[in-house]
Amino acid sequence: MSASVAERPTTDGTENEPTKTGPEAVREGAFGNARSLSCRECGTEVELGPHYACPECFGPLEVAYDFPAITREEIEAGPRNIWRYKALLPVPADIEQSPNTEPGFTRLLKADNLGRELGIANLWVKDDSTNPTNSFKDRVVACALSAATELHAKVFACPSTGNLANAVAAAGARAGIKTVVFIPSNLEKPKQVNSAVYTDSLVAVDGNYDDVNKLAQEIAAEEEGWAFVNVNVRPFYAEGSKTLGYEIAEQLGWRLPDQVVIPVASGSQLTKVHKAFQELIKLGLVEEKPYRIFGAQATGCSPVATAYKAGVDAIRPVKPDTIAKSLAIGNPADGIYVLDICRETGGAVEDVTDEEVREGILLLARSEGVFTETAGGTTVACTRKLVEAGLLDTSLETVIINTGMGLKTLDAVSDLVGPAATIAPSYDAFAATGLSS
Amino acid sequence: MSASVAERPTTDGTENEPTKTGPEAVREGAFGNARSLSCRECGTEVELGPHYACPECFGPLEVAYDFPAITREEIEAGPRNIWRYKALLPVPADIEQSPNTEPGFTRLLKADNLGRELGIANLWVKDDSTNPTNSFKDRVVACALSAATELHAKVFACPSTGNLANAVAAAGARAGIKTVVFIPSNLEKPKQVNSAVYTDSLVAVDGNYDDVNKLAQEIAAEEEGWAFVNVNVRPFYAEGSKTLGYEIAEQLGWRLPDQVVIPVASGSQLTKVHKAFQELIKLGLVEEKPYRIFGAQATGCSPVATAYKAGVDAIRPVKPDTIAKSLAIGNPADGIYVLDICRETGGAVEDVTDEEVREGILLLARSEGVFTETAGGTTVACTRKLVEAGLLDTSLETVIINTGMGLKTLDAVSDLVGPAATIAPSYDAFAATGLSS
Repeated sequence: MSASVAERPTTDGTENEPTKTGPEAVREGAFGNARSLSCRECGTEVELGPHYACPECFGPLEVAYDFPAITREEIEAGPRNIWRYKALLPVPADIEQSPNTEPGFTRLLKADNLGRELGIANLWVKDDSTNPTNSFKDRVVACALSAATELHAKVFACPSTGNLANAVAAAGARAGIKTVVFIPSNLEKPKQVNSAVYTDSLVAVDGNYDDVNKLAQEIAAEEEGWAFVNVNVRPFYAEGSKTLGYEIAEQLGWRLPDQVVIPVASGSQLTKVHKAFQELIKLGLVEEKPYRIFGAQATGCSPVATAYKAGVDAIRPVKPDTIAKSLAIGNPADGIYVLDICRETGGAVEDVTDEEVREGILLLARSEGVFTETAGGTTVACTRKLVEAGLLDTSLETVIINTGMGLKTLDAVSDLVGPAATIAPSYDAFAATGLSS
Repeated sequence: MSASVAERPTTDGTENEPTKTGPEAVREGAFGNARSLSCRECGTEVELGPHYACPECFGPLEVAYDFPAITREEIEAGPRNIWRYKALLPVPADIEQSPNTEPGFTRLLKADNLGRELGIANLWVKDDSTNPTNSFKDRVVACALSAATELHAKVFACPSTGNLANAVAAAGARAGIKTVVFIPSNLEKPKQVNSAVYTDSLVAVDGNYDDVNKLAQEIAAEEEGWAFVNVNVRPFYAEGSKTLGYEIAEQLGWRLPDQVVIPVASGSQLTKVHKAFQELIKLGLVEEKPYRIFGAQATGCSPVATAYKAGVDAIRPVKPDTIAKSLAIGNPADGIYVLDICRETGGAVEDVTDEEVREGILLLARSEGVFTETAGGTTVACTRKLVEAGLLDTSLETVIINTGMGLKTLDAVSDLVGPAATIAPSYDAFAATGLSS
């Protein structure tokens, strides 16, 4: 690849800026079976590289492939992480040789207790909280890291307020690439520490997340050789979320579920799970069948749910105000595609209050022993609301995705739970609590 | 099984007390291929049940088996969690049908960056921080839960200050069994929350961990049907740590490593990894070869390292004073067996200061993108010290075990790391930091 540029219609009003990586040639097979970057809107195909917007219509680019024939057995013989699906990702065939965090193949838990609570007969939880840095972001970052490496990027970077920062800093450390992570300077100390342990290039920016994001775009345009995972290598990055869909199908015994409930921030994850299901059908790896996809948002940042409920196509940006900070994207880039998919498949987009988010966290912890962050609480609570509204069919096999872990958002529930009793260290004191058989 | 009692020579000076579970019969095959409980000291065998001390000599009981022939292929065809080794554990053949947290089969990471830092040519990190509640305790608790279920226990309980409490509360919630977790009342609020999310029967005890532990023994003696994971079902519980050894060997391609470095609290984990290696050799699943096992302690609680270095067999209890709280057992029950194993295999037991523990945490995070808790920092730092002392052979294949995750002990490093710069949200401000290429 020669030095290349891309333009992007930013959603936040900043100027479009070209971005570039180094001038070195890209090796044969660098992106596996990926053929090109293809515009979601007009279908224009451009060369694989650090581009993220269509040169014709400014639509978002996503990776297009020429898939070879592939069997279940070939996939099952692969490693117990996302690279078992490497033939379906924009990564080289020798990806396992490059140091990475080896994310994925997380638990798919049969959730009979939660199912009983929600009135769903056949419920599963796909638990991505057990990824290397405890969120699904390890999947997308692993794909972005591969692209950054193949494009000879010198710096691996992101703007973030949490999970993404952790995942980028950890993956960069392991890969031995210079990593620069940008965060708002008012971020809580524990969240800073959780990224700063991995990198000495954490940069605090005086401003909110939008300011940090704009700065990242500026830097991507100015600096040679920077790969911002969620800016100029975003098409590669986003493909990592497909592995959630692949794993759900494989772990169900190569079968698609009837219904899936997925949290919506930018909306990328939901669209990629759908893409994964479609690919599996096309490749003959699962039987074609109808399935419904549902989106989950927090009411304090629910532009997609609002549009869904209003029956409109346009998504009106909002200023987020919710405890579900990992979902707090007020102007979601893939929101319109989420609407399309949920409508086409017969799903819906729901939203819940912060109070319901907290209840959702506790419900999942107490029924299934899974401590989720606020995003997961949102998904559980939306599932309950979808059942109550009759939008989710309780007789159908349903999977909900837990994208992150509770220790990262401990404050959300710390006032709700605590000791049932505080006692002196004696059996008599214990017996007096009423907790003895 | 009829109602049964067991006596235990407690290590903390409390009276021996009998413990009991319910009177119901135990089903055929409840403990898989386990034959009996066998005394480590005198070899006396007793019936499988809630016993933990030899009726003859008060020595510790451990599970003995009549193993069937088993092949690598049979194991590899099993689930991607510890139950792939169910034939080698005291659990029933249908264990996967019982709701449990499905722990294990965590990453074995090739750690070339850390290897370069430590001067070890061929280094691996077995990363148990990605277990369901983010520590190796999920393994042992899953085995204890099976025993509790098969013994018809009504309550699943433990005394703990951290990782064990999380694992017990989560596993109990998922299994739908009443769970009571005892903690010191002065435990930090975040650690309380991390257990209280799963259970409404968290009991705070005014006293230190020793007081809590004594109370647990009293309750186990008084109450019918309580299974305390680390008291009356301890022999079953402890077997779960064998899976760490099995996984290391399988993930290396059915080969034992040359050297393993393991943190030592009670010492149980180290003895069980050794037991696992011996079983794999006896079953013909790996080739017999010499290997060295090393123990790692924090200097502020290093009774085993002290005995090792003094060349004595007796372990003198200490009062713990270290940031490595998950290793802070002053009178380790399996300490003498750790000494035996480390001496017999040509290993050693080392200890490091709290400052070195902190450095170990950062070294692992920055070299491999793995954020460990203080126990892991201890192991990394001890490995470095063992290299410097010439006790660890840097030319041999070496595995270090990371038993838990850094978010649980954030305070240990929160003063050491932070932003490299705090800037205004502009490219010029960024360029002035010197972080641009």
